Amino acid sequence: MHIPDLLAKIADEVADDIGKGNAADYIPALARVDTGLFGMAVAELDGTVHGVGDWRRPFSVQSVSKVFTLALVLAREGGDRVWDRVGREPSGDPFNSLVQLEHEDGIPRNPFINAGALVVTDELAAATGDAAAELISFLREESGSPTITVDEEVLASEAAHSDRNRALAYFMASYGNMRTPVPEVLDQYVRQCSITMNCAELALAGLFLARHGIRNDGTRLLERSQAKRVNAVMLTCGTYDAAGQFAYRVGLPGKSGVSGAILAVVPGRCTVCVWSPGLDARGNSVAGVAALDRFTTLTGWSVF
Amino acid sequence: MHIPDLLAKIADEVADDIGKGNAADYIPALARVDTGLFGMAVAELDGTVHGVGDWRRPFSVQSVSKVFTLALVLAREGGDRVWDRVGREPSGDPFNSLVQLEHEDGIPRNPFINAGALVVTDELAAATGDAAAELISFLREESGSPTITVDEEVLASEAAHSDRNRALAYFMASYGNMRTPVPEVLDQYVRQCSITMNCAELALAGLFLARHGIRNDGTRLLERSQAKRVNAVMLTCGTYDAAGQFAYRVGLPGKSGVSGAILAVVPGRCTVCVWSPGLDARGNSVAGVAALDRFTTLTGWSVF
Amino acid sequence: MHIPDLLAKIADEVADDIGKGNAADYIPALARVDTGLFGMAVAELDGTVHGVGDWRRPFSVQSVSKVFTLALVLAREGGDRVWDRVGREPSGDPFNSLVQLEHEDGIPRNPFINAGALVVTDELAAATGDAAAELISFLREESGSPTITVDEEVLASEAAHSDRNRALAYFMASYGNMRTPVPEVLDQYVRQCSITMNCAELALAGLFLARHGIRNDGTRLLERSQAKRVNAVMLTCGTYDAAGQFAYRVGLPGKSGVSGAILAVVPGRCTVCVWSPGLDARGNSVAGVAALDRFTTLTGWSVF
Amino acid sequence: MHIPDLLAKIADEVADDIGKGNAADYIPALARVDTGLFGMAVAELDGTVHGVGDWRRPFSVQSVSKVFTLALVLAREGGDRVWDRVGREPSGDPFNSLVQLEHEDGIPRNPFINAGALVVTDELAAATGDAAAELISFLREESGSPTITVDEEVLASEAAHSDRNRALAYFMASYGNMRTPVPEVLDQYVRQCSITMNCAELALAGLFLARHGIRNDGTRLLERSQAKRVNAVMLTCGTYDAAGQFAYRVGLPGKSGVSGAILAVVPGRCTVCVWSPGLDARGNSVAGVAALDRFTTLTGWSVF
Repeated sequence: MHIPDLLAKIADEVADDIGKGNAADYIPALARVDTGLFGMAVAELDGTVHGVGDWRRPFSVQSVSKVFTLALVLAREGGDRVWDRVGREPSGDPFNSLVQLEHEDGIPRNPFINAGALVVTDELAAATGDAAAELISFLREESGSPTITVDEEVLASEAAHSDRNRALAYFMASYGNMRTPVPEVLDQYVRQCSITMNCAELALAGLFLARHGIRNDGTRLLERSQAKRVNAVMLTCGTYDAAGQFAYRVGLPGKSGVSGAILAVVPGRCTVCVWSPGLDARGNSVAGVAALDRFTTLTGWSVF
Repeated sequence: MHIPDLLAKIADEVADDIGKGNAADYIPALARVDTGLFGMAVAELDGTVHGVGDWRRPFSVQSVSKVFTLALVLAREGGDRVWDRVGREPSGDPFNSLVQLEHEDGIPRNPFINAGALVVTDELAAATGDAAAELISFLREESGSPTITVDEEVLASEAAHSDRNRALAYFMASYGNMRTPVPEVLDQYVRQCSITMNCAELALAGLFLARHGIRNDGTRLLERSQAKRVNAVMLTCGTYDAAGQFAYRVGLPGKSGVSGAILAVVPGRCTVCVWSPGLDARGNSVAGVAALDRFTTLTGWSVF
Repeated sequence: MHIPDLLAKIADEVADDIGKGNAADYIPALARVDTGLFGMAVAELDGTVHGVGDWRRPFSVQSVSKVFTLALVLAREGGDRVWDRVGREPSGDPFNSLVQLEHEDGIPRNPFINAGALVVTDELAAATGDAAAELISFLREESGSPTITVDEEVLASEAAHSDRNRALAYFMASYGNMRTPVPEVLDQYVRQCSITMNCAELALAGLFLARHGIRNDGTRLLERSQAKRVNAVMLTCGTYDAAGQFAYRVGLPGKSGVSGAILAVVPGRCTVCVWSPGLDARGNSVAGVAALDRFTTLTGWSVF
Repeated sequence: MHIPDLLAKIADEVADDIGKGNAADYIPALARVDTGLFGMAVAELDGTVHGVGDWRRPFSVQSVSKVFTLALVLAREGGDRVWDRVGREPSGDPFNSLVQLEHEDGIPRNPFINAGALVVTDELAAATGDAAAELISFLREESGSPTITVDEEVLASEAAHSDRNRALAYFMASYGNMRTPVPEVLDQYVRQCSITMNCAELALAGLFLARHGIRNDGTRLLERSQAKRVNAVMLTCGTYDAAGQFAYRVGLPGKSGVSGAILAVVPGRCTVCVWSPGLDARGNSVAGVAALDRFTTLTGWSVF
């Protein structure tokens, strides 16, 4: 099917799901977003982007940023050493749980729960001095949008509600699993979460994962095997405690954020970014998951 | 690469891993198997099978049986109702843990941990009267080996060491999540685990998962979407508490057993069965995982 | 204060608490007991008993039996070896939890949670052949009531609802922490729980704990230090996950049962048995705890 | 027995236990203390103190301070409101665990685990501005030692190793269970732990608990019922995850610290402070517990 038609059809079919669920309510800047919004974009390997609905409306990327930070760490010389500090297994616990950390001596289960993302941010911070700046620079280049930046209001709100993440970071520090001072890591972490982008930009920025590691300018960010492995981690760990359910329904590597965004990868074909702020009980966009479910059903492009 | 050459190359490359790890020691019949054995078979969509090493030597299928039992339940009218009784999320706990069950009111995390497999067996038992007989009949037909049967010595050994599974079953019964009397479910469960097959037979029996639901006789066992979903559950939950690691290294849906067998699926291409009794700390075959890692690296046939 | 007057005053003061809470509902025989009942008895060291309300009305002793079984085990030659199989620490979990058992390799936290009591019963069963018969014989002698026996209706009900306890027992068996076959231990365990007594009889039967180990006939059951230690375990572990709260409010060693009975010990002075079927969320009698709270406040006889 | 003779006899009997175990090693100031030291003091109700061994040698009070902070909070108008923020149940987990906090929504199990003591410190800080100053003032008055103060070296060491406690505090803050800014609470908390006293001083300072709430100057700090209740919390929660074992062996309310100190209370009779730096696996002084065990055995002064 022609992709624009496909997107129109999907938007139509998920109309009833838009507005379901609740916006994340832990910070005001997210809580007051209209849950009736819905956008979806598909980026093809050559950089062509198609979209539907609010696909050009910006939102904060939140945890979708985690997949890029991980890729930037792995792309660096010796980046694989990050796996000494964070695991690759699904957590079986909510994204901000400390229980697992205590049972496993301060080693987070995977890089996509908050504790793991703090470790990855710490790695990038230790290597570059400023993980958030590094990330923004990469996102601007890949998406071709030089104005991508942090939303200062969201940032202030995040910073004011970071006690839980602070606890996670100090807890890991107590096990010797923090290299940079905790306040600095936290600052860079919340800056990453507060970056504002739209569906088109996120889909473009993620294309290197569909291209087995090749960036939009043709250079290689990740080895082929590394790119596959990032996809594997997205599939097993990318949607919080619903990764099994997401694999079952959608069957694609995906990473979600509490703003209602989900970035999914069809290896060798395209990326898909969908955004709708209403979340289900596990923190994933209701309409977003439904749209991706329709997408793989209509195209047959699940990895399975 | 020509598959026979590929298999020879893999066998050569993993030679150092063969013999590593320990055979499962909870029952004598498994403990005394030679960890120096290694077999691998690839079954193509048309039923052609290639093998290397001990690929025709029989072993007990153990937990690899769980994927077939699940498929047989899902294939039945209303089979999806099994998902009311068992989840689809990775467990984050060892395969025989009771902790999660207690926190989640007697609903096992997924059909591939022991508790979940007991529920699936119970469903098949309730529907057919004899889950093990149903399974054996299916395995015989798909593999073309009419003599496939239970190893009575392994069965006796399993039955004599089933206190933990018995505890799991009664625990679920206490939450109302058992339909058949516990002793009967346990009996059928251990019979399934004690079925003896070789790599070629298992690879053939699993081909319906590579063929999107179509059996060897051309009839449909599962809907296309159901087959994809079984593959998704294998990828996220099929290798105990190492599913993330397996997805990362191998990148294929796979189901392992404590006898050292692993059945992996390349959707649309083939199945692979590897067997070597030496297990790593998480219960997966050391040489088996290494061989599958080589397989996807050499062929590029990871799903990612 | 004169004890009969004291009891009358307490009954008056807790009148508003009688009927609060819910009767245990897991078996019909307990669920239909009138929560408006209330009885209380005090047994002095010389065997004089005073009572108020329904103090002569029989009820099933349920978990109050656990303290006697423990004492009978400890009284035997080498009885202290039971501490190799069960701990002495408060559990921090509900009385029938399996979580702790798994984290601590099949060793229950203390003898008063169900798992621990199963171990203690197993010890007595292994030593005597019939733990329940041994217990009944002891209770008859101490209370001077030769007709004390099991309520067959309660027993049948308990036996039909014992999946959880069966799971606990098989789980411990899987760790090698069961000497007698599980069905036999369970049978003797539920028989103990189903013994029927009244407040006067229970208070009399417990007097050896107030007399530092001396039975009603003047012979010694336990060494002085052993009797003190049983009291210590009652105080730290006797009221499920509310032992801290009970120590705080009441300040006496006590053991409760889901029938609404509580046996408390004032070392060197007396025993108190109170019964009222309405339970709080943690399984202790609402009016019973309130009455004991009044008792220690009015007499000053807390151990602290 | 004459108390000086008793103390001499105990010191003699536990000679073999002195030096066993290891000094706390998380901060250098504690790690290098000689484990061969042993001191014990008994304070009678009238303020007479007897001692043996190193009973006049100062050590940092560490967690023994927690019992005084709790008493100072309870002594204040409305002090009972602290129980809305912290429980009174034994924890069943190590003293610095976060697991329980997460399962129980940021409410620590009891005031004697670190998380609970941070809440109690927060209460005193919120009420007085400086919890540590308030505590030091109280300890000086009760012990008659106006020079009691913080050991600055220990303080610096504690402050430099407080990531875990910082994690606990931020974690509770994320549940809204911190009133004072976390850095301030932590500062006052580590100051309390770093106070230096000797056995005689601690025994004197704790006499109000043996006198049912009456201070050394005859004024009342706590109501009689409050004093009993503090003793109850000490007995059920005062010795970390070994409270049941301590109640069983010693049978007295007691509070231990990782410096090897234990303060025990014989209600209506005396207090006992014992100190020896070698700790068992659960963080209690090996020789200290042995000495208290001998003490209650020889005197018969257990509360049971």
